[in-house]
Amino acid sequence: MDTTATAAPPASAQPLYRQLAAAYRDAIEDGTLRPGDRMPSVRMLMQRHTVSLSTALQLCRHLEDEGWLEARPRSGYFVRRRLRARLPGVVEPAQDQAPDPAAFVGIHATVSAVIAQGQRYPAALNLGGATAAPEHYPTEALKNAVLRCLRQSPTLLTTPGSPNGNPEFRKVIARRALDAGIRMTAEEVIVTHGGIEAVNLALRAVANPGDTVAVESPTFFGLLQVLESLGMRALEIPTSPSSGISLEALELAIATYGNIKAVVVVPNLQNPLGAIMPDGRKAALAALCERNGIAVIEDDPYRDMHCRTTPPKALKAWDRSGNIIYCASLNKTLAPGMRLGWMAAGRWQARVAMLKFAQSRHNEEWSQIAAAGFMATSAYDRHLQRLREHLREQRERIADTVAASFPPGTRLSLPDGGAMLWVELPGGLPSRLLFEHALQAGIRIAPGSMFSNSQRFDHFIRIGCGHPYSPELDAALRRLGALTAQLLDGAGR
Amino acid sequence: MDTTATAAPPASAQPLYRQLAAAYRDAIEDGTLRPGDRMPSVRMLMQRHTVSLSTALQLCRHLEDEGWLEARPRSGYFVRRRLRARLPGVVEPAQDQAPDPAAFVGIHATVSAVIAQGQRYPAALNLGGATAAPEHYPTEALKNAVLRCLRQSPTLLTTPGSPNGNPEFRKVIARRALDAGIRMTAEEVIVTHGGIEAVNLALRAVANPGDTVAVESPTFFGLLQVLESLGMRALEIPTSPSSGISLEALELAIATYGNIKAVVVVPNLQNPLGAIMPDGRKAALAALCERNGIAVIEDDPYRDMHCRTTPPKALKAWDRSGNIIYCASLNKTLAPGMRLGWMAAGRWQARVAMLKFAQSRHNEEWSQIAAAGFMATSAYDRHLQRLREHLREQRERIADTVAASFPPGTRLSLPDGGAMLWVELPGGLPSRLLFEHALQAGIRIAPGSMFSNSQRFDHFIRIGCGHPYSPELDAALRRLGALTAQLLDGAGR
Repeated sequence: MDTTATAAPPASAQPLYRQLAAAYRDAIEDGTLRPGDRMPSVRMLMQRHTVSLSTALQLCRHLEDEGWLEARPRSGYFVRRRLRARLPGVVEPAQDQAPDPAAFVGIHATVSAVIAQGQRYPAALNLGGATAAPEHYPTEALKNAVLRCLRQSPTLLTTPGSPNGNPEFRKVIARRALDAGIRMTAEEVIVTHGGIEAVNLALRAVANPGDTVAVESPTFFGLLQVLESLGMRALEIPTSPSSGISLEALELAIATYGNIKAVVVVPNLQNPLGAIMPDGRKAALAALCERNGIAVIEDDPYRDMHCRTTPPKALKAWDRSGNIIYCASLNKTLAPGMRLGWMAAGRWQARVAMLKFAQSRHNEEWSQIAAAGFMATSAYDRHLQRLREHLREQRERIADTVAASFPPGTRLSLPDGGAMLWVELPGGLPSRLLFEHALQAGIRIAPGSMFSNSQRFDHFIRIGCGHPYSPELDAALRRLGALTAQLLDGAGR
Repeated sequence: MDTTATAAPPASAQPLYRQLAAAYRDAIEDGTLRPGDRMPSVRMLMQRHTVSLSTALQLCRHLEDEGWLEARPRSGYFVRRRLRARLPGVVEPAQDQAPDPAAFVGIHATVSAVIAQGQRYPAALNLGGATAAPEHYPTEALKNAVLRCLRQSPTLLTTPGSPNGNPEFRKVIARRALDAGIRMTAEEVIVTHGGIEAVNLALRAVANPGDTVAVESPTFFGLLQVLESLGMRALEIPTSPSSGISLEALELAIATYGNIKAVVVVPNLQNPLGAIMPDGRKAALAALCERNGIAVIEDDPYRDMHCRTTPPKALKAWDRSGNIIYCASLNKTLAPGMRLGWMAAGRWQARVAMLKFAQSRHNEEWSQIAAAGFMATSAYDRHLQRLREHLREQRERIADTVAASFPPGTRLSLPDGGAMLWVELPGGLPSRLLFEHALQAGIRIAPGSMFSNSQRFDHFIRIGCGHPYSPELDAALRRLGALTAQLLDGAGR
């Protein structure tokens, strides 16, 4: 890492001070600049980067706002000890014992109850979601793209759409997939009604009701609902917040139960853990499943929300035999209101195309054309860069406030991207209790009981980081921390 | 019927001469004016209806164009013998023997082959579809509704949509359902990605893989594909072009096989027959299924394309116990490019809502808002009236040309609405043969083999009537007739 930070990212549309801030932040994160170190003076910054006084000041104030620096009167700026450093990471799961046997999923009642309870407090600040606020998405540009498309081709509204999806959209998706290490043709892309339909179709293609499907534990409750609705059994595999699904536990499960039809994984920014599987583990997972005749369903809707210098690859990049069905969507990264998902189904391509046609036909055409137009340009890259930057800031500030306001024993692993934090409550405090008290205080969170068919994560909560940090959000987090302490005291008594 | 035809439809936006033409056509159809009868002279028409010479002339010429009148030199206009009267109706199915046992469906290969073959001739005139041409839909009005909606609320693109559908759209759907005799609240409406998703969800709610589902025979190939994709067995019940599914055969099947989980019916303008079940039979079907604990799935996407004075009612109007799941869409009646379907699931409401959420989440919001805005006004009624009028004309002219150009022994039942004709070829001529020869001649039709899991309808074709009648269409139909005669000769040799 070059601490002189003269190399700004080439295609960046960010103001100069933010480009410089990113470089200094990296220097702090990788330890080149350490807590207590003195920041170069404003005059030195002006000389070193050939920038104006105003830019140098903006740089320092921005890093201060973000909590990286603190100003000491008459001495200048110093690197601050990050509050969240006080929080230990979430406990890693044990990997040396076989997971619980597969079970039919009975999560719907739990999830419905949580959602219904939440809806009774419509005014509550919603920290239960995993979607960013609308201001983080290119609303105007997308609107203009849709308007342009419909003005040019209004009969798109009154003509049946293209089978398997709009050709231009499929082309852009295939081209963008190169960034994830996936080489596929536009013809391999099947457009779906959101990522969730893709996962449904993938499961229906490779497994039947009653079959066992291995999933990460904890996992996205939506996946558990899909398994429940399809009458499939879930085998929960311990999953690490740092390295993803445990290959050791998966191998043990294969050896112990031996009837696993498929495994569903979110290798990049796993929901709710935020784990990104290292390349080596991705390669090993792909090989393990191929060797054992287990189909892999990769759900990859969050990848573009990473904040790494080298973009994480899709698991599909290691697919050598068409054994991996790749599913993704634009729901989190571009437009939460557009139901645009897609998949590439490997050796199940024909079967998935048949199931998709029978299930819901093609998607509406103009959404695809509008998205394709936007995604074909560098405006999409600039949007993603901004989104990542905002989310990073929001995750870090929320983590800092959690560190400052939650009682000791609280644990949290800060992920390298995404819009959520997974928080372990101290003393095994049941998160449904906190969920209910928080709702009454006007705050909605997602209790850990939604993320597993077992009770293993009942003392976790997921906090959404999609909202810009604000005094209201700050107060809500502090209130959550105080409630946790209060409930913990009550429980201890 | 008042043959003086002074009472024009009140809310009509049609030119006067067309309103008058409709009344005279009714008089011919109900026999008040008979073939060979002399039409009132132009002068008499002017006096009787207080119209201009030009309107009276337009009236006569329009009826002549449509084939209702013929001009005899120096004698005026006479009611013409309709050509299609020469065609006998499709043979009614036998009802006194138990249907074939239920079987797993293997239609996908057939349908795919037909579709793939068709796609190899992209320039062919497509008479294989059941959708009307774009010019029959209110493209401009819908476009403006979408533009207005997105200009007003662009964040619809970047905010998750409403669960179960947009409230305004659900309200309009519930209000419009009154016209079909259905009383339901907006909360009962679940919006789906097209009618086909509704049928999928309904089947998944009431039956499991391996279960037997009774269907009409012949039936829409899309339904057979859904059953195949869900691993359910189809029990084909003989269905009459005049009165719909045979209750006698259904009762016999219940008595013989006794394991029927559900019956799927299209009671209004059945695809491909065009049958509208009489009220009495609808009531009897609802009662029969309720008595026998068989769930009813009503697929009703064509109802608004009827051309009857009294709108046909939905089967759901006779539902007393929540035993009927009602499915419909706007795909055929308003906007083939918008994937807007909906359902009301009776006693399976909660299960269907769960399945819909797990399968594909909510629909895109702006399509629903735009459709709701249009459907809330009388513009929608005017559109439907025009659509019905155009389709009636197209059906009749196509039927006339079929009657004039196909060899003797050809049969056809003219339905009271919709955009398709079901034609029985003479001499058991295999329709796949005609399909293939027609493709080479640049004409696409739907062969009867797509509409049943059996071979029973292999000598039928479905002709789409969605295109405005044109010299090109006329020539195509005559060519089809000539090809049929030719192939019949070849087969006879």
